[in-house]
Amino acid sequence: MEKTKVAIVGMGTVGSGVARLLLDHGDRTARHAGRTLWLERVVVRDPGKARDVDLPEGVMTTRLEDVLEDPSIEVVAQLIGGLEPARTIMLQLLEAGKDIVTANKALLAEYGPELFDRARELGRSIAFEASVAGGVPIINCISQSLSANQITSLEAILNGTSNFIVTAMEDIQADFETVVGEAQRLGLAEADPTLDVDGSDAAQKLAILAHLAFGARVHWSDIPRQGIDQLELADFNYANQLGYRIKLIAVARLIESGLELHVSPTLVRMFTPLAEVREANNAVSVVGDAVGKVFFHGLGAGQMPTASAVVADMIDTAVGRTRITFKTLQLWSDQEARVQPADPKATRSRFYMRLDVLDEPGVLAQVTGVLGKHQISIASVIQHGPAPDIQPGMTNWNVVPLIVMTHEAYEGAAADAIREIEQLDSVRSHCVRMRVLD
Amino acid sequence: MEKTKVAIVGMGTVGSGVARLLLDHGDRTARHAGRTLWLERVVVRDPGKARDVDLPEGVMTTRLEDVLEDPSIEVVAQLIGGLEPARTIMLQLLEAGKDIVTANKALLAEYGPELFDRARELGRSIAFEASVAGGVPIINCISQSLSANQITSLEAILNGTSNFIVTAMEDIQADFETVVGEAQRLGLAEADPTLDVDGSDAAQKLAILAHLAFGARVHWSDIPRQGIDQLELADFNYANQLGYRIKLIAVARLIESGLELHVSPTLVRMFTPLAEVREANNAVSVVGDAVGKVFFHGLGAGQMPTASAVVADMIDTAVGRTRITFKTLQLWSDQEARVQPADPKATRSRFYMRLDVLDEPGVLAQVTGVLGKHQISIASVIQHGPAPDIQPGMTNWNVVPLIVMTHEAYEGAAADAIREIEQLDSVRSHCVRMRVLD
Repeated sequence: MEKTKVAIVGMGTVGSGVARLLLDHGDRTARHAGRTLWLERVVVRDPGKARDVDLPEGVMTTRLEDVLEDPSIEVVAQLIGGLEPARTIMLQLLEAGKDIVTANKALLAEYGPELFDRARELGRSIAFEASVAGGVPIINCISQSLSANQITSLEAILNGTSNFIVTAMEDIQADFETVVGEAQRLGLAEADPTLDVDGSDAAQKLAILAHLAFGARVHWSDIPRQGIDQLELADFNYANQLGYRIKLIAVARLIESGLELHVSPTLVRMFTPLAEVREANNAVSVVGDAVGKVFFHGLGAGQMPTASAVVADMIDTAVGRTRITFKTLQLWSDQEARVQPADPKATRSRFYMRLDVLDEPGVLAQVTGVLGKHQISIASVIQHGPAPDIQPGMTNWNVVPLIVMTHEAYEGAAADAIREIEQLDSVRSHCVRMRVLD
Repeated sequence: MEKTKVAIVGMGTVGSGVARLLLDHGDRTARHAGRTLWLERVVVRDPGKARDVDLPEGVMTTRLEDVLEDPSIEVVAQLIGGLEPARTIMLQLLEAGKDIVTANKALLAEYGPELFDRARELGRSIAFEASVAGGVPIINCISQSLSANQITSLEAILNGTSNFIVTAMEDIQADFETVVGEAQRLGLAEADPTLDVDGSDAAQKLAILAHLAFGARVHWSDIPRQGIDQLELADFNYANQLGYRIKLIAVARLIESGLELHVSPTLVRMFTPLAEVREANNAVSVVGDAVGKVFFHGLGAGQMPTASAVVADMIDTAVGRTRITFKTLQLWSDQEARVQPADPKATRSRFYMRLDVLDEPGVLAQVTGVLGKHQISIASVIQHGPAPDIQPGMTNWNVVPLIVMTHEAYEGAAADAIREIEQLDSVRSHCVRMRVLD
């Protein structure tokens, strides 16, 4: 049987998983590739580090040159995280004539145009299914399966850590800090989880999907984003009362004025597919004008789901499918963007709002009056009296939460209205505001 | 821009949708294919029939020869249903050097080995994403995205008509005949819906998926199957009480003794993804040993979802991806089957059982005694007294329904036990039995 020599650069969790699939399950790759994927080299920084895979004698090296200078190695899984030296190594590998498979979404979100241009100049390819939603084959589906469609919207849960946290906050009724600690103990959150929980990771993935699905050219840091790190337990409970769950949702949607893009905690109607995505799963709901709504769900991270996507890409590259796709799609080429980001203020949504107000006559009328002035009509209101155990003498004895669900309104109008509402004497808190997905 | 000339044979609902995508949205296909898909010919039987697409002058013909004898036409969407003349036409097209795209699952389930062998001999390809689950890209995902996995199980809703009917029976509390009439009125069921509702259509699709995912070589008619045509409303209500919905589920699952395969009405635990698939949607839940569980959901039939899959396949064929996949996968080649169907009796499941019994002391003990003898243990029982409006003098005044949910048991043992139970004097009905999916 023919063989294609491959290498792995970076032997962390995912790299070890890729090595295991290649070494222990060569029969599968042979069956799907019609050839053997032969693991020739694995480049590591620290050869002494314990790893959960036994490499054959002579495969491990600390010298990238052993890959760069071996022309028999055709495909390289580049599995180093972060921006540098990942970027430099990727360019070196391309210049050495290698086709690349990567799981590094931060690298693509930051340097996609440069890397893809260079690959094209050199007649090489970059495959990146593993960079978004891990084992969920959303890149392949958008690039190939939905190619007859104009995609009109994409709503997704793209960060497994955040989804684990919001699921747990709702289930065990614990606050953000408690659940993050638990997620860290389980290995589901990094020691510093900032990029996961502040929406940056999801925005990087959304930037990649928006380029692929809509031809948008937007830097991830320009995508309006809000994380789950400010969420309070109270909002989960009010959401439940209203028939919703809170999820960190990434949205890219064609509207009249361009492409609506944002990542934000969102109330999602219970029992709809996105609302029921639990734990560290990812999901993507895509609407195409021909196919209608297609929904994908699976593990978005973790060793073997990600390795599964990397090895599938290595097979696609070895047999020549990737080269065709890479060439025809012209990703991040110097073509014009096919759509511009819409002005965020001109996007529309239903909104959930919560604020603390004085328990006095006329307060609800004041708040709803401001909303009405900004053309925001109200779908429902929850206002409870003060808790019975709050006694006179406590400073907040006459402060109660007010929850408002609006009908669809402009983002800009909602922001303006809230600024005005927060100035009211009867309003005693910052206003929590979230989008609603029905 | 380069162009690839294509043709459509068969201008029914799907064919018209394919023509519309090619004619009205050439920019998309150009973008994804890097070339124009040029609709050169459409072969129809009756040129006078009204169609919802305007073909350019000179494209429509009644002569298949206009396609066969035009060597410039490279890709043909063969969209004639049924077995003949579809099979003969497919062979003629292959022999004339055309690559084929088809949505005809009955044809593939019946003549797959012959057609694929012939295509291989002639150096041609057959693409068939649209043949299973319409717009849900399950063929592409199994063939490419999950290629690093041993797939271990596949649970699916593959017949949209059946799913529409069971969803409606539960929602509007109507019996099978009433809902079928409504589905026919809405165009969601054929005038003769037999193949949809008796499980044959789902079995044909399952045979294709089982070949693709497991290398099984089983004729669809050898897959044990049961339809929804015998379902009674009462069972939907008991299932709901127990926390389940009834769905027509197709299963292919690796077990110790081989490949478990069946299509049957199944109790699926509420709020799990498969249970919540509504109306005419399809869904597939695939487990791979690396990727874990991946779930796909979308419209399984209908003009544009199916056309979306056909055109994606035409693009894949035009750019050369299909030829690679077709060659490496060696589908329906003369290779040995990689797995044999398991003896159905040796498969295991939890079971739901319902029977009418005399409302007398000792009856429950008799029934459960027989189950125990066959090593079937009971998870829960529902037994209500007779309805208050049943009066003495009515023949069934002392007959009550008994519902038993078992723990996991052998299919063979359950069948034996039920044969024995139905012989008991105190049992006054046939026993309804369904698998349970938790």
